[in-house]
Amino acid sequence: MDLMKYLQKRARLVELQMSKLFPERIEPKILTDACRHLFKAGGKRIRPVLTLASAEAVGGKAEDALEAAAALEFLHTFTLIHDDIMDRDEFRRGVKTVHMIWGEPIAIVSGDALFAKVFEGITANVKRLGLSLRRATEVFATVSRASFEICQGQTLDMVFANHKRVSEEEYMRMISLKTGALMEASTRVGAILGGGKPREVESLSRYGRLLGIAFQIRDDVLGVAGEEKKFGKPVGGDIREGKRTLLVVRALEVSPPRKRSRLLQILGKRDASGKDVKEAISILRDSGAIDYAVEKSSELIERAKSELRALKDSEAKDFLLELADFTIAREI
Amino acid sequence: MDLMKYLQKRARLVELQMSKLFPERIEPKILTDACRHLFKAGGKRIRPVLTLASAEAVGGKAEDALEAAAALEFLHTFTLIHDDIMDRDEFRRGVKTVHMIWGEPIAIVSGDALFAKVFEGITANVKRLGLSLRRATEVFATVSRASFEICQGQTLDMVFANHKRVSEEEYMRMISLKTGALMEASTRVGAILGGGKPREVESLSRYGRLLGIAFQIRDDVLGVAGEEKKFGKPVGGDIREGKRTLLVVRALEVSPPRKRSRLLQILGKRDASGKDVKEAISILRDSGAIDYAVEKSSELIERAKSELRALKDSEAKDFLLELADFTIAREI
Repeated sequence: MDLMKYLQKRARLVELQMSKLFPERIEPKILTDACRHLFKAGGKRIRPVLTLASAEAVGGKAEDALEAAAALEFLHTFTLIHDDIMDRDEFRRGVKTVHMIWGEPIAIVSGDALFAKVFEGITANVKRLGLSLRRATEVFATVSRASFEICQGQTLDMVFANHKRVSEEEYMRMISLKTGALMEASTRVGAILGGGKPREVESLSRYGRLLGIAFQIRDDVLGVAGEEKKFGKPVGGDIREGKRTLLVVRALEVSPPRKRSRLLQILGKRDASGKDVKEAISILRDSGAIDYAVEKSSELIERAKSELRALKDSEAKDFLLELADFTIAREI
Repeated sequence: MDLMKYLQKRARLVELQMSKLFPERIEPKILTDACRHLFKAGGKRIRPVLTLASAEAVGGKAEDALEAAAALEFLHTFTLIHDDIMDRDEFRRGVKTVHMIWGEPIAIVSGDALFAKVFEGITANVKRLGLSLRRATEVFATVSRASFEICQGQTLDMVFANHKRVSEEEYMRMISLKTGALMEASTRVGAILGGGKPREVESLSRYGRLLGIAFQIRDDVLGVAGEEKKFGKPVGGDIREGKRTLLVVRALEVSPPRKRSRLLQILGKRDASGKDVKEAISILRDSGAIDYAVEKSSELIERAKSELRALKDSEAKDFLLELADFTIAREI
């Protein structure tokens, strides 16, 4: 199975559908340009491809979930635009963030507009398939619940940045909401639209949630140990923002007192020098937190893969298995 | 027919439903407090009561549209929270705005969370009624389209503040999107959930759109000629923000050149003195723009009321007729 070929082929389908749902000609131009900026800048399209693959993995066709897949990428993009404002991030996917180009007001409203498009896409999809009301409302309930959970997770992420102590349990709950919820919704919606049996829908949902959590931990690791150019955002950003990543949570727990207070000094210091950031990264590394996070994400991925045992063999299942491994090996 | 009694009785139903859909105990507390702040501060609940009344006006029960009504008030509240950030407004409904209390990041994410709740409410409603897929998707399509139109309208409102010339036609399109779309969605969703015939649904939709446009024009008038204490927000705010209200559009069109350039000088001046604002208001008044706006809104209300001829007589129809008159007579 060629992971990248499978991914890219479906990513193209999703991108076409995104352009259909959100064509360039929509007025006012400034709103449309801002909405389309980040999705034009690329992205791996992992979430919508998860949706298509989940539809296929339960015996449906990728096309069964096309508008919903595009909608879930809109949902992802909307959260990125708003998170970037909240976190004051300047770059994303190697380009300037929306609020850096058009200012905060347009960035806020363009996120909102993308969010509105999410439900337009979902509606078009369930209507086209002529689903039963039960299945249709399950799709809507899944997407609205995930949207709310993302907000809870983002809030916790911000709140935790001002806490000295965040337990690993609190951290896990936060990323389950912030990142796990949308990955779960992506697989769950695909499984429902593909006509999955309840057992398959539940297995794919759990797979998605676990994958999302592992994905976020990998993101935490790449945020301090990744290559800036590949990763698309500056290394050390999480440290300057004071983010309570798993690395930070773990290092604060196991480091000797002096290192711990030094780390707390640097965390959240917006104007921390490159030297400060390097020192913080050394403390994380010396504490064994990076290795710890890598191991943790491997465990989660094993659990995610074992959820797929419920599914019949298929190319889509192979893709989901390989994607799981890729998630924790990726450098982008 | 006692307008206020009818309104308040149904407003209580909606408020109970809002608390059910968004209970206080949801974590994290800061998010829930921020989400509930504005809707706890009161508000006339005109939109959700329109939804209930529209369900009744086509022969259904108010209860048929209860969760959707609450959802539409969430949608309204979410747009207020985000608009207040974008417009840098400090007060709303006589209390501090969300971003003034909790800061912009929490205000952004609490708006998003309320938006997520919108679709949860709609989903619960169509599920409970066991609607046909056709009617269910029409409800979702209506709400997502209105949400998108609100974003278009808000964008135009901001963009126009930097334009010297905005035509009356452009202004009308802007408020049709910004305010008309949600009022239309409120009546339309109620009419669909109440089991209305297509002709009734369309008439109530047009009534809602016209009512919304007239409502916004009245808001423009109150923004310069209203009493601050009753109105809940500072008089002259629109002038300092440079808003292209109908008054401004009209005055710029008909005032003599010297008055026009003076008005343009004051508009959008964030630090305009009380004297400057008073002068701008005098220019608006002397141009006849206030009278013009009052007349325009009366015409729209007559058209809105005539749409209701399609409906059988009922208490709900009487309410809708009286609400139309109240809309342009109100001082709050």
